Amino acid sequence: MDFISFITSLVTSFVIFVILMLLFTWLSRKPSNSVIYCSNRILKGMEPWEGLRTRNPFSWIKEALSSSEADIISLSGVDTAVYFVFLSTALGILVFSGVLLLPLLLPVAATDNNVVAHSHATSNNTFNDLDKLSMGNVKAKSPRLWAFLVGTYWVSFVTFYLLWKAYHHVSDLRATALSTAELKPEQYAIIVRDIPAVPQGKTRKQQIDSYFRKIHPETFYRSMVVTDNKQVNKIYEELEGYKKKLVRAEAVFEASKTASKPEGTRPTNKTGFLGLVGEKVDTITYCNEKIDELVPKLESEQKITIKEKQQGSALVFFNSRVAAASAAQTLHARMLDTWTLTEAAEPRQIIWGNLPIKFYARHIRQDIVYAIVFLTIFFYMIPIGLISGFTTLANMMKILPFLKPVLKIDVVRTVLEAYLPQLALIIFLALLPTFLMFLTKFEGISTESHAVRGTAGKYFYFTVLNVFIGVTVGGTLFTSFKTVQKEPKSVVSMLGKGLPANATFFITFVALKFFVGYGLELSRLIPLIIFHLKKKYLCKTEAEIKEAWAPGDLGYATRVPNDMLIVTIVLCYSIIAPIIIPFGVTYFGLGWLILRNQALKVYVPSYESYGRMWPHMHTRIVAALVIYQITMLGYFGAKKFVYAALLVPLPVLSIIFAYICSKKFYRSFSHDPLEVFVQDESKETPDLASIFRAFIPPCLKSEKFDDADQQFEDAPSHVSKSESSV
Amino acid sequence: MDFISFITSLVTSFVIFVILMLLFTWLSRKPSNSVIYCSNRILKGMEPWEGLRTRNPFSWIKEALSSSEADIISLSGVDTAVYFVFLSTALGILVFSGVLLLPLLLPVAATDNNVVAHSHATSNNTFNDLDKLSMGNVKAKSPRLWAFLVGTYWVSFVTFYLLWKAYHHVSDLRATALSTAELKPEQYAIIVRDIPAVPQGKTRKQQIDSYFRKIHPETFYRSMVVTDNKQVNKIYEELEGYKKKLVRAEAVFEASKTASKPEGTRPTNKTGFLGLVGEKVDTITYCNEKIDELVPKLESEQKITIKEKQQGSALVFFNSRVAAASAAQTLHARMLDTWTLTEAAEPRQIIWGNLPIKFYARHIRQDIVYAIVFLTIFFYMIPIGLISGFTTLANMMKILPFLKPVLKIDVVRTVLEAYLPQLALIIFLALLPTFLMFLTKFEGISTESHAVRGTAGKYFYFTVLNVFIGVTVGGTLFTSFKTVQKEPKSVVSMLGKGLPANATFFITFVALKFFVGYGLELSRLIPLIIFHLKKKYLCKTEAEIKEAWAPGDLGYATRVPNDMLIVTIVLCYSIIAPIIIPFGVTYFGLGWLILRNQALKVYVPSYESYGRMWPHMHTRIVAALVIYQITMLGYFGAKKFVYAALLVPLPVLSIIFAYICSKKFYRSFSHDPLEVFVQDESKETPDLASIFRAFIPPCLKSEKFDDADQQFEDAPSHVSKSESSV
Repeated sequence: MDFISFITSLVTSFVIFVILMLLFTWLSRKPSNSVIYCSNRILKGMEPWEGLRTRNPFSWIKEALSSSEADIISLSGVDTAVYFVFLSTALGILVFSGVLLLPLLLPVAATDNNVVAHSHATSNNTFNDLDKLSMGNVKAKSPRLWAFLVGTYWVSFVTFYLLWKAYHHVSDLRATALSTAELKPEQYAIIVRDIPAVPQGKTRKQQIDSYFRKIHPETFYRSMVVTDNKQVNKIYEELEGYKKKLVRAEAVFEASKTASKPEGTRPTNKTGFLGLVGEKVDTITYCNEKIDELVPKLESEQKITIKEKQQGSALVFFNSRVAAASAAQTLHARMLDTWTLTEAAEPRQIIWGNLPIKFYARHIRQDIVYAIVFLTIFFYMIPIGLISGFTTLANMMKILPFLKPVLKIDVVRTVLEAYLPQLALIIFLALLPTFLMFLTKFEGISTESHAVRGTAGKYFYFTVLNVFIGVTVGGTLFTSFKTVQKEPKSVVSMLGKGLPANATFFITFVALKFFVGYGLELSRLIPLIIFHLKKKYLCKTEAEIKEAWAPGDLGYATRVPNDMLIVTIVLCYSIIAPIIIPFGVTYFGLGWLILRNQALKVYVPSYESYGRMWPHMHTRIVAALVIYQITMLGYFGAKKFVYAALLVPLPVLSIIFAYICSKKFYRSFSHDPLEVFVQDESKETPDLASIFRAFIPPCLKSEKFDDADQQFEDAPSHVSKSESSV
Repeated sequence: MDFISFITSLVTSFVIFVILMLLFTWLSRKPSNSVIYCSNRILKGMEPWEGLRTRNPFSWIKEALSSSEADIISLSGVDTAVYFVFLSTALGILVFSGVLLLPLLLPVAATDNNVVAHSHATSNNTFNDLDKLSMGNVKAKSPRLWAFLVGTYWVSFVTFYLLWKAYHHVSDLRATALSTAELKPEQYAIIVRDIPAVPQGKTRKQQIDSYFRKIHPETFYRSMVVTDNKQVNKIYEELEGYKKKLVRAEAVFEASKTASKPEGTRPTNKTGFLGLVGEKVDTITYCNEKIDELVPKLESEQKITIKEKQQGSALVFFNSRVAAASAAQTLHARMLDTWTLTEAAEPRQIIWGNLPIKFYARHIRQDIVYAIVFLTIFFYMIPIGLISGFTTLANMMKILPFLKPVLKIDVVRTVLEAYLPQLALIIFLALLPTFLMFLTKFEGISTESHAVRGTAGKYFYFTVLNVFIGVTVGGTLFTSFKTVQKEPKSVVSMLGKGLPANATFFITFVALKFFVGYGLELSRLIPLIIFHLKKKYLCKTEAEIKEAWAPGDLGYATRVPNDMLIVTIVLCYSIIAPIIIPFGVTYFGLGWLILRNQALKVYVPSYESYGRMWPHMHTRIVAALVIYQITMLGYFGAKKFVYAALLVPLPVLSIIFAYICSKKFYRSFSHDPLEVFVQDESKETPDLASIFRAFIPPCLKSEKFDDADQQFEDAPSHVSKSESSV
């Protein structure tokens, strides 16, 4: 990639960004779009954005900058606040690094002339002006390399310092959130899995109740056996479907009552496959019939489910937070493959279907999933390597000669050269997350937030291994393969030239990500178009419209690994080509600003895990740091710099740092520490019945029962108050 | 080692064994020796061995065989019972293996003639008759190797089956022991370490009490702050020393009152260094003066210690076993380097001095110790390699030619040839355990039983790496070095011949261990001699005599690794030279019998950890199995047997087996599972004050106080009864 196409790429990205910003400014002022640009505020019952009325198009920036962490927590939860800690930590690392590295390393590199000398010597004119600013321009064994060595240390220590501070801060956030007096039903419950076979003459419920009442006579409240809800859920969803259809048909019927035809047209539909075949019926009558038929069916199925479809898993409720947290963390059974206990998560994020999966099945599933992920990562290596090798214009012209006339047009050529490799990569990566999420849930994980973390982890390994290492090594090896064949000893110097060459590729990659990616993010062009199409052609009822603009959450499963990839890339090239740092700073700065706006106004979190994502982010930043340190060690070696050995302590230090952090903080993220519960412990007894009800799945809730939880009981269990502690 | 010296070694060992057995039969009948041969029974207040009076010299065998596991538990504790499970499991593995392998493999090997063919070909007559019975006698690529392959699988599956059964059994033993209603003070206490700095205006005790009372208002009983007892302990021991001296002096004085001299001689001593220099004083007066002087000093030091030498560590007591076990396993603090909680151990096995060591100090100490152990293991490799290489007669004659005349005497030659290598090895190993125990305690471990496990682990790695692998590879390489120099490709066939050659060495090693080792064990010759010498020349008082025959415990720290070494050796050679199996069976059979006797009558356990040693034994048997499987894989490879690849699944299976076992059982050994506490839970409240008193170190116990624990209180803490659980 030469200098012209590099600039072209940046300028094109920037133009797209400006267009998207103008679109945003224009579109977000229309009140009809407020459901797209202020969905979170609307759902929270707030005024949909005061800025709408002001004439200042940058008011959202002011709002984003002036919002506090407490605002974020109240509007979008602790997880979102933790995500911003991650963004600002990454930003901080890059800013601090840049402050020293840019003034120090750029002049040191620019005033040497390794690249020019080499290209004169070999008469090969592929270098570009950017390469002069990189470490590749410093001669081998030059004492100038000392400056780069110092830089390597500086980046590492900046990272350690900021990560340490961030971990402390996130730990405080989590503790504060956990300790608030606000009632969180999940803090009173634990998930019990792997319950052994029911003993003769007892029901599953009696078995569970007697087990826990014996051990926790004072604190056990009651239990809820997990049932196989597949059947009842099917009926429930069918029923809900007909209810929606009915509302919709009535709306259509109302709308058809025009002045000219006051009686209206009763909507009809066909009963067969997809409404395309079968008997034609009056929709309103048909739906009413179906609903009347399904309601008793649902009720009887609910009874059958609760009585006969009990699984070897349950939720157990305690009458205090300390008791529940203690029970979840304490070993109960002698055989660890029975009575597995974990802290419960919010009802909305429990994956009910996974709870009854047995201990060994879970482990085997996990092994299978890991094997599949491993294969996926390593077999995608080949296509990615090929793509990054082939998608250069020169290669395309060779392989697809019929495209030559098109490719010789200057504009096409420049644009293609700038975008081809990156676009191929980005589209390629879009295919993966759904597959990884499916795999992660298949492992038998019990909560959505855990599944998201698992998916993010897999996606991170994938992106780092395939995009970063794959492209670097693949690209370098491909372009230099012929030279190596002639002169095998030049591999090391080839690498020394190849890494900075890839830096240009990654700079444009980062720029594309923030200009186009964040431009689209802020303007929400695609959700907006989809919403308007749906509203115009599909939605008939209020509920349908609301569904059409539902904003979703921030999508950590792909967002975090993508950010992590940028962290890895920018860290790794921070010394080799320090010019990448401003791009990284822009990525995280712009990201922070735009996502702050989105978090405050648009996205609605779909769960709350109180910052359990953080340790994973932390560990992966350290992993990126280790990759960076090892890369530097190799690159200094390629420069034949004998003092490169001074870098050996760095990866060791990083590993010790990660170890200390995990020892000091990690367990308080995977479990609830008891001391947070006593800080504001209100002495009032919580409403245990409502806590219990919060966990009843919607398909088992019945309006006919006054007390919804009654149906879960053969005989209601009482808190034993007869025995008092000594 | 040729066949003659092999037989000589066996016969000599056997003769020593017979002599020791005769000595035992003779000595154990003398009532004056009953304190040596029945110490445990005497200390337990039982009749010192009915067998003493019968004329049957084998009655102890009958007794040992007829004793049940319950007898062992009641006389020697669960740990001893678990050790016997280990012995009988090892015995079972070898018996089951031998039943198939001996009739199958010995004929298959003996009827081939690889060794003879080879030695004819190379005119090198070093093979012996035993080698004909080994796998080395089977020709390369022979289909006979199938029998050995089947054997390899058989041994592995026998091991899996018996280990699985044993783990279940030990888990039952542990659960039964933990669940008995008998009061165990350690089940009501937890150890708290890494307590943060005392906040302003509070005492350490208030800090701890308020922390735990807030979190566990219903179940917290009281706390005991760990103090720095170095000073008070010194005074206490000085005082105890003078008390002993006084009793002794009075006894001497009484004894001197003979008929001829009824007034007696008052004993005197010198006050200087070791009683050798200084002023001569009357001992009785001197001791009385000293005691009068030390008693108030001790009291004031006790007060100072309790008030001013409090450390950042404590014992916290709860009013129920479930509460204590829950608290010990539950995360309390947000920062994991503060308020570290573990289940308490028996008072007698707590290493008080280690409790205040801080979190990071413990981790750093551990790393230092691991580094030292690593160095120890790898630098002892060199001397061991040299010893096993040099201690052959041929080498000795070459290196020390002046010994030639002596070594040419047939008897000397035969005996030396039989014993030299093994003796060097055994003496060498005797130096190590104390050093390893010191290192393990230096890690900051809080209990004796844990320190013993740690030492046993280190010693196991040492013996397996140095004795087994070192001798095998070192020995083989040394004898074959010159051939390899001439003909480098013969390394593989050299290994094929070298391993069976070492088998003879290890067979004599095993035989020496059980004949001489267990002979000495049963006859207790050395403790007997020491006791009689002490009694005659040193002991003057009853207490001193009792101290002289104190039997000690079984000494797991070295006993278990030594047994594990035998397991490793016998397993590894079970296929290569199946003739080793009967020797292994004898080792564990004889060991079981003799130690059963010793456990019932002699040794007194110094702590009780309720079988926590088992997971370590289990894991190490599996480790020995993996070493065996990998050895076999290599050896089949050396035999150029293509189906050797069929052995690859075996080590994988072993690792899966170890993983499943650890998943299923391990945590219930490192923690107390709650369900065991409810099985026989008596509803009576235990005497909490006496539980508390059990943990007061002797040097802080004071007879002057009516209630010894009063001194630990500024103001006594009460169990909060005002708040009741809901």
